[in-house]
Amino acid sequence: MALTRKGQATRERILEAATDLIARRGVAGTSTEDVRKAAGVSGSQLYHYFDSKQALIRAVITRQAEVPLVPGRPVMGALDSFDALRAWADAAIAHQERNSGRGECTLTSLAGELAPADERSREDLCNAFLRWRSLLHDGLRAMRERGDLVPGADLDELSMALLAALQGGSLLSQTLRTAEPMRASLNAALAYVHSFEA
Amino acid sequence: MALTRKGQATRERILEAATDLIARRGVAGTSTEDVRKAAGVSGSQLYHYFDSKQALIRAVITRQAEVPLVPGRPVMGALDSFDALRAWADAAIAHQERNSGRGECTLTSLAGELAPADERSREDLCNAFLRWRSLLHDGLRAMRERGDLVPGADLDELSMALLAALQGGSLLSQTLRTAEPMRASLNAALAYVHSFEA
Repeated sequence: MALTRKGQATRERILEAATDLIARRGVAGTSTEDVRKAAGVSGSQLYHYFDSKQALIRAVITRQAEVPLVPGRPVMGALDSFDALRAWADAAIAHQERNSGRGECTLTSLAGELAPADERSREDLCNAFLRWRSLLHDGLRAMRERGDLVPGADLDELSMALLAALQGGSLLSQTLRTAEPMRASLNAALAYVHSFEA
Repeated sequence: MALTRKGQATRERILEAATDLIARRGVAGTSTEDVRKAAGVSGSQLYHYFDSKQALIRAVITRQAEVPLVPGRPVMGALDSFDALRAWADAAIAHQERNSGRGECTLTSLAGELAPADERSREDLCNAFLRWRSLLHDGLRAMRERGDLVPGADLDELSMALLAALQGGSLLSQTLRTAEPMRASLNAALAYVHSFEA
């Protein structure tokens, strides 16, 4: 379905409201009626773009997959140097600090809540995580090709470790309401990458 | 309330059923009626031990906090040597492999689902995570006192990094259905600890 410019703006407004509510209350605590009110649209408008709560959730996941790895930050350049990786980690830590450790990550919340239950949404989440991981993988490959990393550096493992550190840090920071877990986990993962410095 | 031996067994059966269902379906997908059926108890029995769904969830969290850091494993000894930490990591990876990456961690699921919404349960989750972290912290302190780790090793950061690696690995392994994230994240965190070897 091709949307008019106005239609796209409405759809985007609904998705923004849904993303924000899910980050704060979880999927179970967010009804389509909540989303409708927050977005300031009518029930028939909402239904026009998303004919079920699941369709809305899946669109939120797909949209978040497009977002750079740290929410609330403008699109980053390639993560293809130690400095760029450090800046990425610092941005994630700063995001938690600004929100007193409540810097919600919509996808982290969704992964905890949906993974066991909803197969189609789980697949969307997989794709979102794999897309993020590929950004890290691309950057690390450029570093290895440039000779910043030793030839034997296992890019699959390193990129997965960085993504897991971001997710684990996010989950614990969200629960403990402090940025310390994010700082500790990203420092550890970056130190691991540094241990393969050429 | 002091429970008879039979009462304790019934309460434990209810908690086991609830823990299992929550790990597989999430909190939102688990009704007290589901728990009642799975545990094979009457409605009045269930209500006798847990007068609300929230009371049941909080008891599940408290019970999981008592569980050693890797579910499905008998209680471990102290995590106070590089070998013990490696065995702990290997057990967590093996747990994901046995379950094709679906080795659900009830607390990881709960953290993703509840943290934004439910303040009392969030505090219970905090306590569970801090308890686990203190097991790691105790082990690392013993290593530092014994001279395995350099005097400057930051035990707060190291123990948090290990716990975040376990949680991030669990979340991603659960979503991607492979043990690779758990392996990558724990290998990275252990390498970080090793970098402080005396």
